[in-house]
Amino acid sequence: MSFDLGAYMKQRADAVDAALEHFLPAETLRPETLHKAMRYSVFAGGKRLRPVLVIAGAESVGGTAEQVMPSACAMELIHTYSLVHDDLPAMDNDMLRRGRPTAHVVFGEGMAILAGDALLTEAFSLLAREPAASAAMPAGELHRRRLEAAALVADAAGAAGMVGGQALDLQAAVPGAAPLDAAGLRDMHSRKTGALILASVQAGAVMAGAGDAMLPAVERYAREVGLAFQIVDDILDVEGASADLGKTAGKDAAAGKPTYPALFGLDESRRRAADGITRALAALQEAGLEGQLPAIARWVVSRTN
Amino acid sequence: MSFDLGAYMKQRADAVDAALEHFLPAETLRPETLHKAMRYSVFAGGKRLRPVLVIAGAESVGGTAEQVMPSACAMELIHTYSLVHDDLPAMDNDMLRRGRPTAHVVFGEGMAILAGDALLTEAFSLLAREPAASAAMPAGELHRRRLEAAALVADAAGAAGMVGGQALDLQAAVPGAAPLDAAGLRDMHSRKTGALILASVQAGAVMAGAGDAMLPAVERYAREVGLAFQIVDDILDVEGASADLGKTAGKDAAAGKPTYPALFGLDESRRRAADGITRALAALQEAGLEGQLPAIARWVVSRTN
Repeated sequence: MSFDLGAYMKQRADAVDAALEHFLPAETLRPETLHKAMRYSVFAGGKRLRPVLVIAGAESVGGTAEQVMPSACAMELIHTYSLVHDDLPAMDNDMLRRGRPTAHVVFGEGMAILAGDALLTEAFSLLAREPAASAAMPAGELHRRRLEAAALVADAAGAAGMVGGQALDLQAAVPGAAPLDAAGLRDMHSRKTGALILASVQAGAVMAGAGDAMLPAVERYAREVGLAFQIVDDILDVEGASADLGKTAGKDAAAGKPTYPALFGLDESRRRAADGITRALAALQEAGLEGQLPAIARWVVSRTN
Repeated sequence: MSFDLGAYMKQRADAVDAALEHFLPAETLRPETLHKAMRYSVFAGGKRLRPVLVIAGAESVGGTAEQVMPSACAMELIHTYSLVHDDLPAMDNDMLRRGRPTAHVVFGEGMAILAGDALLTEAFSLLAREPAASAAMPAGELHRRRLEAAALVADAAGAAGMVGGQALDLQAAVPGAAPLDAAGLRDMHSRKTGALILASVQAGAVMAGAGDAMLPAVERYAREVGLAFQIVDDILDVEGASADLGKTAGKDAAAGKPTYPALFGLDESRRRAADGITRALAALQEAGLEGQLPAIARWVVSRTN
């Protein structure tokens, strides 16, 4: 029997969805509209890649999904908040996301801003939440690792990471701004998309007790996967149809946004993504890390949506 | 020599400003505009009430300002982000704050949204940051208390707290919405303003090693102070001149927003604020808490801006 990554990802994503359902405030609680907007955006059919990476990161060092479930959910909330704010009229002005009207179209701009704020804040509540006691780790050690994970997630999500990447994106879109070159594009993507993917794998590994020798390998793996993920996103934006992606295909290119295919062509972009995954797999193998991280890396370059 | 609260608050606020200067990313770092927008909003001449409350909360149980300085700064960043987002066109649409153009007027709406996001995220980076080692507390205990403080700040800032309060405010401003009654007004304010004031005092006390018996008194104190602060804000909005407040006086009333003076009249509003402070002082005295919390409470009702 060969390993079925699709079944693995589906099982983990379902567990994440159940946990999110539990953690998010009910729509019947005041303020109802805020809670509705939060849930509308979170339960929009995402792949749950970041939570699955938290779990796979934990499993790669011998941990379990249960150990890191609140943090796995936190990463999805941060990802979701970034999409909600990115779609706003003052940012990318997107009306459609995953085939549905975006949050500000449904709930209004003010409520969409607040829903994003609340999702980001709730993420840190989950990261700080007392984890289930673990027989494998003394309480003090568990608390130290939890703080370390929360700090690296905050740094990845903030001005030095994801928000900084969105600001670079916004600056580059100002009329008259110099277009990003290859180095600028890589910097922007490594912040905007890569930082959160990196922090997901790192947080899972740190919380599950990764030894110091494992962490550099985890970091090399996650950096390569994050970049490859973004390159494939750019390729799919050029190739894809609107229906498959659930958003307007070719939109980035039409908006004059720099993309890998625009800078390097499709073939060279595909080669760069594949080379990155080869390096990611080598890093894991050298460090002797276990589990599904290699299969997830292969999926990242072969995915069609 | 009587105690000089003004000098105490000025000294603590200056220390907070120096720490904020150190913690915030430099304006010369990319993306420059994001960092400029963050600093423009943080260094706008605020009173630093929330950081001072973190420090006073720590001192009230025998701790020091140094022990809690990153968290004190975190509360100011959360307060600042809430003002930046609250001022946006899709929310209160304010052009002026503390006598200066608001962040979105200066940096554009998209950058103001991102600056708020970055400030909120940076706050959790500071809350999770390793504190200075303390001879008075074992490391494991310090980590546990740090996590507990981060969790209660997140809950106070999120959908159950501050963001929830802003959503209630936004819902009440929708044309045709039922106006808030006294209970609704109190709920809205206890979330929008009170929750963060409460969390400031609590976080300081928790991190400095407050015993379980002290925490209920800290909570009673901070709830009363938070409510009184808001009542006085409403009174100043009615009485104040635009120049003193640095914002448009009477704006809340003109916008049809419910206020304490509108519901109860000025005299009854003043009486309610004073009664709250009396209860706050009684709570401190019963628990034998030390330091400047009583003086700060008295300042809250006597302030003129």
